[in-house]
Amino acid sequence: MGAGPSSVAPSTYYALSRSTLGHLDPYFIKIMDEVKEGLRTIMGTKNMLTVPMSGTGSIGMEAAFVNMVEYGDKVLVLQNGVFGQRMVDVASRLGAEVTELAFEWGTPVDINRVADKLSKEDYKIVAVVYAETSTGVRNPVEEIGKLLKDKDTFFLVDAVTALGGMPVEVDKWGIDICYSGSQKCLSCPPGASPITFSDRAVEFINNRKSPVPNWYLDMSLLTKYWEGNTRVYHHTPPINMFYGIYQAIHNILEEGMETVYNRHQNVHEQLVKGIEEMGWEMLVDKEYRLPMLNAIVVPEGIDEAALRDKLLKEYNTEISAGLGTLSGKIVRIGLMGYNAQPYNVEFVLKAIKEITSK
Amino acid sequence: MGAGPSSVAPSTYYALSRSTLGHLDPYFIKIMDEVKEGLRTIMGTKNMLTVPMSGTGSIGMEAAFVNMVEYGDKVLVLQNGVFGQRMVDVASRLGAEVTELAFEWGTPVDINRVADKLSKEDYKIVAVVYAETSTGVRNPVEEIGKLLKDKDTFFLVDAVTALGGMPVEVDKWGIDICYSGSQKCLSCPPGASPITFSDRAVEFINNRKSPVPNWYLDMSLLTKYWEGNTRVYHHTPPINMFYGIYQAIHNILEEGMETVYNRHQNVHEQLVKGIEEMGWEMLVDKEYRLPMLNAIVVPEGIDEAALRDKLLKEYNTEISAGLGTLSGKIVRIGLMGYNAQPYNVEFVLKAIKEITSK
Repeated sequence: MGAGPSSVAPSTYYALSRSTLGHLDPYFIKIMDEVKEGLRTIMGTKNMLTVPMSGTGSIGMEAAFVNMVEYGDKVLVLQNGVFGQRMVDVASRLGAEVTELAFEWGTPVDINRVADKLSKEDYKIVAVVYAETSTGVRNPVEEIGKLLKDKDTFFLVDAVTALGGMPVEVDKWGIDICYSGSQKCLSCPPGASPITFSDRAVEFINNRKSPVPNWYLDMSLLTKYWEGNTRVYHHTPPINMFYGIYQAIHNILEEGMETVYNRHQNVHEQLVKGIEEMGWEMLVDKEYRLPMLNAIVVPEGIDEAALRDKLLKEYNTEISAGLGTLSGKIVRIGLMGYNAQPYNVEFVLKAIKEITSK
Repeated sequence: MGAGPSSVAPSTYYALSRSTLGHLDPYFIKIMDEVKEGLRTIMGTKNMLTVPMSGTGSIGMEAAFVNMVEYGDKVLVLQNGVFGQRMVDVASRLGAEVTELAFEWGTPVDINRVADKLSKEDYKIVAVVYAETSTGVRNPVEEIGKLLKDKDTFFLVDAVTALGGMPVEVDKWGIDICYSGSQKCLSCPPGASPITFSDRAVEFINNRKSPVPNWYLDMSLLTKYWEGNTRVYHHTPPINMFYGIYQAIHNILEEGMETVYNRHQNVHEQLVKGIEEMGWEMLVDKEYRLPMLNAIVVPEGIDEAALRDKLLKEYNTEISAGLGTLSGKIVRIGLMGYNAQPYNVEFVLKAIKEITSK
């Protein structure tokens, strides 16, 4: 019940352990095609180029920037947490001219400040984290998309923690590049990173002035493996991880996306109620809280590291520490995918009460 | 029985499907430490920085070059196949000044030509593929290492197909950077890419003039997650894939490395005998043949694509096509790890005879 990886359904573990097929086997290609289709549904997009990348969540971020950035490109990163900071780092290493618009951690991106910034300067890319895992904040992605509607700017969104636990509407919100990870609300082990590129982004990639400075993640090559009647070998993908994500997608679609999102919201509200009854506080204002990642302020006098240690050792339950400036001040409880169940909330609340009342 | 992914032992599938632990869980850190130690044994090295990367084989190549290359660095690639060509591509995208010394596909790197080249010019990196998967050629890595012994040059070796099927002696042969993949002779599904860096290479990385232009693969950051008493989160690694590689390493060490290498050599000789009895020929001269990847020249009048198709559909057996200039001329039979068994050789020989005698 930490910030991820989350627990995994038995059906997905089972899928993971099926016989490894060749990467050009006709049956495996059917699996690839169904994974693409399932991801499109969950990501709310008709984008052709919608695939899992061969690595964990952060490779999605790397793939997004390395394909879209050319040396000297202007990138605006809206930063209110560790993963926004990571975007700044990733883009800077690629030679982008990065402007960082920072917001207090635990608060959302302020749409007025973004509008002001965009009225003064044009950017090639505007990037934001939808569900900031380090703080539990939901950023106003839909509203930022509206600001970019009539611009040439590419809108790049991190949906690592969001996808599968709350609506992600790539097409409706005008997102050009969106990536996620398998190990959060999709409830698959880490190792496959869904990503989608709009046709406009694909057109840019195919007409870059400079080659993508990363062979492994070059979407113009990967497309030939993922699309068309004749599949061209690029690299060997993580076959069994793709069985896992196939099954994980199936599980969500079978339960129904609305039902899944409601389940996340309900257990979140159950947890918040319990936390507040204990007299503890949530870090984030109600309106901007994520359902799947709950940042809880640890009261004065309670050693959060000792709390987490006892939860792990005595209750076999992992919760996460704060990161960066929030280290030592908060704990983070994940309610992601397979873990988002009322009995898990009851269990963790009871355990925290027992430990802190001693 | 293609060029990989190879088949996987039941114990490794079982390991893959165990419960996903957190990436900072104390038990998982023990698994990480044992994986490092096991890889050191199989790679013949005492290098501290010996870890699996969070991706498939080609991410090893990417990690090797992206950490070692700075803009304008001189890199000599000894090329006699697809994976040598891939090295040229990967290094060039990173801004290296690449010199490609090419050799006929199906023949090994000629050590005299290398010596001649090195006598005329200094390179920062000399790179070669040990077991060239596209042609079945074993390159003279030990001899190249001797040529570089008294130079400042970094020696970079691709051991994707070699590792676990034949000796790889990183320290004895003077290799500075060596990478592999999980899905060949280690007989684990694709998704974890072992890599090792010499202390000298690590020192270079830690003192680079420019940051590594890839956050996900930056070894100076990854080291803090893999080493020391306090592990610092970098990215979430593919937890279950690392269970798989843990088990796969265990299987090799339990059987004994010598026994494993002999098993590969024996089934290779069995296959060659059968192929030659059919009147077919091997592409590569005896002295330079790989045991685990057998490139077989398809006689005139036999349609290799139809042969592979029938093997797959009627015998449930995959073998691989030729790549690049060898496309249509050869087939490649893999005898890797769990697949390197006499009954598999008997089966595929019988099947090929039945199909081609119709």
